[in-house]
Amino acid sequence: MSKEKLVLAFSGGLDTSYCAKYLSEEKGYEVYSVIVNTGGFDAEEVREIERKAYALGVHHHETIDVTDEYYAKCIKYMVFGNILKNNTYPLSVSSERVFQAIATVEYAKKIGAGYIAHGSTGAGNDQVRFDLIFQIMMPSVKVITPIRDMKLSREVEIEYLKSKGIEDNWVKKTYSINKGLWGTSIGGRETLRSDTWLPNDAYPSQATKSGEEMLSLGFEKGELASVNDTHTDPVSAIRQIEAIASAYAIGRDIHVGDTIIGIKGRVGFEAAAPLIIIKGHHLLEKHVLTKWQQYWKEQLANWYGMLLHEGQYLEPVMRNIEKFLEDSQQYVTGEVKIALRPRQFEVLGISSEHDLMNAKFAKYGEENTSFSGEDVIGFTKILSNQMRIYGAVNKEW
Amino acid sequence: MSKEKLVLAFSGGLDTSYCAKYLSEEKGYEVYSVIVNTGGFDAEEVREIERKAYALGVHHHETIDVTDEYYAKCIKYMVFGNILKNNTYPLSVSSERVFQAIATVEYAKKIGAGYIAHGSTGAGNDQVRFDLIFQIMMPSVKVITPIRDMKLSREVEIEYLKSKGIEDNWVKKTYSINKGLWGTSIGGRETLRSDTWLPNDAYPSQATKSGEEMLSLGFEKGELASVNDTHTDPVSAIRQIEAIASAYAIGRDIHVGDTIIGIKGRVGFEAAAPLIIIKGHHLLEKHVLTKWQQYWKEQLANWYGMLLHEGQYLEPVMRNIEKFLEDSQQYVTGEVKIALRPRQFEVLGISSEHDLMNAKFAKYGEENTSFSGEDVIGFTKILSNQMRIYGAVNKEW
Amino acid sequence: MSKEKLVLAFSGGLDTSYCAKYLSEEKGYEVYSVIVNTGGFDAEEVREIERKAYALGVHHHETIDVTDEYYAKCIKYMVFGNILKNNTYPLSVSSERVFQAIATVEYAKKIGAGYIAHGSTGAGNDQVRFDLIFQIMMPSVKVITPIRDMKLSREVEIEYLKSKGIEDNWVKKTYSINKGLWGTSIGGRETLRSDTWLPNDAYPSQATKSGEEMLSLGFEKGELASVNDTHTDPVSAIRQIEAIASAYAIGRDIHVGDTIIGIKGRVGFEAAAPLIIIKGHHLLEKHVLTKWQQYWKEQLANWYGMLLHEGQYLEPVMRNIEKFLEDSQQYVTGEVKIALRPRQFEVLGISSEHDLMNAKFAKYGEENTSFSGEDVIGFTKILSNQMRIYGAVNKEW
Amino acid sequence: MSKEKLVLAFSGGLDTSYCAKYLSEEKGYEVYSVIVNTGGFDAEEVREIERKAYALGVHHHETIDVTDEYYAKCIKYMVFGNILKNNTYPLSVSSERVFQAIATVEYAKKIGAGYIAHGSTGAGNDQVRFDLIFQIMMPSVKVITPIRDMKLSREVEIEYLKSKGIEDNWVKKTYSINKGLWGTSIGGRETLRSDTWLPNDAYPSQATKSGEEMLSLGFEKGELASVNDTHTDPVSAIRQIEAIASAYAIGRDIHVGDTIIGIKGRVGFEAAAPLIIIKGHHLLEKHVLTKWQQYWKEQLANWYGMLLHEGQYLEPVMRNIEKFLEDSQQYVTGEVKIALRPRQFEVLGISSEHDLMNAKFAKYGEENTSFSGEDVIGFTKILSNQMRIYGAVNKEW
Repeated sequence: MSKEKLVLAFSGGLDTSYCAKYLSEEKGYEVYSVIVNTGGFDAEEVREIERKAYALGVHHHETIDVTDEYYAKCIKYMVFGNILKNNTYPLSVSSERVFQAIATVEYAKKIGAGYIAHGSTGAGNDQVRFDLIFQIMMPSVKVITPIRDMKLSREVEIEYLKSKGIEDNWVKKTYSINKGLWGTSIGGRETLRSDTWLPNDAYPSQATKSGEEMLSLGFEKGELASVNDTHTDPVSAIRQIEAIASAYAIGRDIHVGDTIIGIKGRVGFEAAAPLIIIKGHHLLEKHVLTKWQQYWKEQLANWYGMLLHEGQYLEPVMRNIEKFLEDSQQYVTGEVKIALRPRQFEVLGISSEHDLMNAKFAKYGEENTSFSGEDVIGFTKILSNQMRIYGAVNKEW
Repeated sequence: MSKEKLVLAFSGGLDTSYCAKYLSEEKGYEVYSVIVNTGGFDAEEVREIERKAYALGVHHHETIDVTDEYYAKCIKYMVFGNILKNNTYPLSVSSERVFQAIATVEYAKKIGAGYIAHGSTGAGNDQVRFDLIFQIMMPSVKVITPIRDMKLSREVEIEYLKSKGIEDNWVKKTYSINKGLWGTSIGGRETLRSDTWLPNDAYPSQATKSGEEMLSLGFEKGELASVNDTHTDPVSAIRQIEAIASAYAIGRDIHVGDTIIGIKGRVGFEAAAPLIIIKGHHLLEKHVLTKWQQYWKEQLANWYGMLLHEGQYLEPVMRNIEKFLEDSQQYVTGEVKIALRPRQFEVLGISSEHDLMNAKFAKYGEENTSFSGEDVIGFTKILSNQMRIYGAVNKEW
Repeated sequence: MSKEKLVLAFSGGLDTSYCAKYLSEEKGYEVYSVIVNTGGFDAEEVREIERKAYALGVHHHETIDVTDEYYAKCIKYMVFGNILKNNTYPLSVSSERVFQAIATVEYAKKIGAGYIAHGSTGAGNDQVRFDLIFQIMMPSVKVITPIRDMKLSREVEIEYLKSKGIEDNWVKKTYSINKGLWGTSIGGRETLRSDTWLPNDAYPSQATKSGEEMLSLGFEKGELASVNDTHTDPVSAIRQIEAIASAYAIGRDIHVGDTIIGIKGRVGFEAAAPLIIIKGHHLLEKHVLTKWQQYWKEQLANWYGMLLHEGQYLEPVMRNIEKFLEDSQQYVTGEVKIALRPRQFEVLGISSEHDLMNAKFAKYGEENTSFSGEDVIGFTKILSNQMRIYGAVNKEW
Repeated sequence: MSKEKLVLAFSGGLDTSYCAKYLSEEKGYEVYSVIVNTGGFDAEEVREIERKAYALGVHHHETIDVTDEYYAKCIKYMVFGNILKNNTYPLSVSSERVFQAIATVEYAKKIGAGYIAHGSTGAGNDQVRFDLIFQIMMPSVKVITPIRDMKLSREVEIEYLKSKGIEDNWVKKTYSINKGLWGTSIGGRETLRSDTWLPNDAYPSQATKSGEEMLSLGFEKGELASVNDTHTDPVSAIRQIEAIASAYAIGRDIHVGDTIIGIKGRVGFEAAAPLIIIKGHHLLEKHVLTKWQQYWKEQLANWYGMLLHEGQYLEPVMRNIEKFLEDSQQYVTGEVKIALRPRQFEVLGISSEHDLMNAKFAKYGEENTSFSGEDVIGFTKILSNQMRIYGAVNKEW
């Protein structure tokens, strides 16, 4: 009897290495390991992951690069929405999981697999992100999660792999670090408590430059179009800004949030490019959008960030929100000036032909120099009407 | 015939000095100048303003201190709501105007004045704040605004005052600076354009300390109760934090916003204490409030900040929102650790007996260690239901 | 060894009768059956339920009346919030479940029971409401749900009870009808599809009156205080209005909504009193509240209704919202006139000393007849500013 | 010297008749009267208005039909958004004013007029709608409003016209009635107070049919596509539904709302077609949209309705909201059954291939019968997490 096909979301780490071996050898699946690159791995890392997969005995290993799709279907909207979860966290890594899950399930459909496995434990957010996407897009598939199901410890996993002749540098690091295109998350030790914080050297990037450096970002309809006056595509721009700004150790913070499963969680992160891009984009919007456009963008973007964070990216309202956000970017075109300094940056100013803070038009026309003091008096009189009547009727003052 | 009583909101600056003289002498009002201190003036400044008022010929000068009221009826709620307009501006100064207007109109009622004057021009936000409050609380009063009505230039005002023998250091400063308990605003030259920014020396506070200093803030039901473990009242705490942090030149930024009258505006500010307090309070809330409490607090607080900024503090919904905010603070009690460094600060961590990130309770009970991997599977299965059905019915994937 | 105490939420219906017998006899629990009356049962029904319980062999039966608590902690806020789920459904029955669950778990705590059982199946909303409340308020308790766990059919249940000598009129009715203080729900046959609707005789109340009858409701701070000019308490008022209006067969509709578990559901209901009270209260509010009070009340009340419907009544944000709603009712005092006719009613008008549609105050004062045409011109000029500038800058027209 | 061109928004009523004569003869303008038909006038009425215009001495009269544009740019979105102001009013007439203003100002631009006149008084909403649109789209134009400026009474206007030989049936009717494509508004006498209501004969349509009639509406992507199974275009469908339903005197109510200028206002209306279409469309949406799509649609649509009502249709956020609403209609396709009876209608049920209440998919697949009781237990356990921890940490119960 032929083996049953199983797709394994593979990262090359201990948990998914265990899964690869265990599911191939003990459970007899024909394992198709998949690494979905959303921009966090370079070519060398991707090759190394492939090498590991075959060494663990997978039937086939597939590398799927969805960096451009991840940008076009997700990062773009996070920028449009200036999305910082709890006013802090640019959804580094967490948003990438969704696209890794989607590519994995699409691959499973393509090869006709009846099983998908992932290496998540039962304690965090990632299990929910993977499970949700799989259950929604392929309800017939059976999801297998050995680490969660058997509540395995690292020690047991290492022991098993060793017994199978698989040796690697499995030593547990103090911090669990996840690097992605949209930032790096850092968890462990201090982030497990509320009253301690990560030491300087827990962060991957260390300040190698001092002084101040000016950075100029160009946006076209809300998307990055240039860095320091050189035209570029958005994904390259993100990498370039990260390279420039990480030399100042910019973009560190700790996110405290509500996990999808109702428990509070805390994670350090380093996200120089996302923070600079979002703050720059936001400043530009403050100049070109109206008050109510900004108001409603914020409402919808907060919601978008929440559902995205919780793995509910496939909820149809997300598509509707994207349409709103995209339409709001029609005039979000211009240049933003930013100062970079060790551990901090400052968004300084913008120039845009769509800037509503425009002396020429605010005093539009000749005869009609906008408005007079009398107009303001009329305005406040009418604006006061309801409060005045309320106060009088109810004898408030 | 006896003179008619007029109350003048007086600051001692050029505009209100002109008004004091002009309204007394040219218009024949019995002028009652009023300085309402919301915490921005010290005793010496208050005395100097009184001296100036009498020198300008006012009938009576009244000093009204509403600092405690301003805290209890406004700052408190801005902290509860973590209010930063456009994610940036702690409503420095602008919120104080409302309480200056209220105290002024209450004084006018007390002395039975038929006229209130203020020195605002026709271009900014303050005129609306004053007019609104006066029209709402005392619709029978006549509001007089000589600077706005006669579109007077500084030169004309100085000329007039000189002709009356009033000499002062009327030289126009590069920046118009307004200092208050909740921050200092800085406007002029660079803030009038979109693409330039304030030079270092435009800010009142300059960094006099280097290195890093730890600051500890204690909150009780959302209100400041201690600084560096020493119990204190909230207003004193604000002053103390400002004194400590301004030595690091912390809290500078530029606010770009929509003025009440629909024009975009830009103003620099320095608000070390407000920013530190709000960010510290917010971090504490992330630990002790539920996801939905935070969600709705943010909605309501944004609205509160907007109406407050626009002078619509007397809108009855503001009172309803305050009740919500106050009730949400029941467990916002704990300590927040903050690191101060030149030009920046970092909110590091908290400790609170109400912290929901609590290993003891998250694994509550013995038999009942919270939840299992199976529970999560059930959770995601149910959570996926609607999206799964939607996808299947509409053949989305 | 002594038996273990189990509290059973008991209604006297087939499912909970099965549970009472099965858990006592087959499982050996000391069963404490509890009927929590939220106003849907009269004294006779309560006695009959007690009789049935003992006949099924329970160790003790407890009748708990929480009608007043249900009003004070729930109905009151649903009226304050004009809560109609999906603009249609007054949360009849569903909101009562929460208070039945709370009283049940409090009783379990009081007698030191280690088990709580309920008779819900695995398909609906009620299981979630019960489970949630039990898990939140008594995480150590073990919840037992025989019908859900064993996926029992009515036939099997009846067979079992018959075999134990328990005979009753267990014939399945076409419609499952749940009567409560806040309305009656009617489910079955036609409501299981999308394109059919309940026949006239499926509804408990039939029109016995024709013509038109006037009804007058008095509210004090948002709560019912009189019916047809006779002072009464709110709970009695609800019963009285229901008695008057059900003679016109008023208040029928079908609710289509999203169940807590993500499936669409449809249920008929009859809720004359709730609909009349809410529509009357809402009209009064339109006269006495400001635009923004109404706006935010609606936001918060919708959310309140959603969480209440989903059994998340214990979410702390609900308490915060209640404070907002309560504060908003300060001036919601007045009389509402309603016309009752067969199958319909019309809310006609109100009178209130807090009515903001008040010619006297809208034209407040003598000198100061509110505002002039010029004021309106100024108002619209200022109000147009941002849109005008936006259009000019972006050459929109 | 040649006369100056003035465009007059002309309706043929007393106020605009006065304006036509007065501005031509007393003020010497070259008056271009414009009647913009948004669907409220038939061909005969349009011809009669033109006749009156020339009789009053206008230089040129222009009839502009924007019915289709009004549908495509406004009614369509009101249906998508199920917009009922204050849960009651389909924005009859008020939304039409915006399109009349836009067409008028476009005509003024086309002929190079320097002046636009309208006949609004200084008390209502229409003046604001006209002024706003004119000031935004043509800031250089001078707006002339003789009735508002001179505070003219009907008597004075009639006297003036008589003196010029213009006779008409100027008798003041008890009610001011405005008929449009999207409903008819009725104001006067009883609507000026809070506690009286319109008599039966104040409404234009009287019930001429009794009994019950079934109506079937077909929607395609949210737009009307058929009536009683006969394909038709949306505008024709509106007229057809109105013709059918007005025979039952359906759709009467009184709207109590906040005027743009802060005063409470009350207006009767009759809008059979709008109410039936919106309620039918809404029911269909309850079946085909997800919970969160419905939630956000409601938020945005309420806002859209508010700004539209207030004449702020040109606010750019309106375009962004339209994109959201349009995108949400992708699957709002299906049939709705409605019962019409004298003075009432009932929305009975729907059928749609996109119906999410679909037994086939809710129990999708064979192996995978959706979910089990255990899944629900897991779901509620996880869902209870935060509330349970909150309660335990804070010793709430």
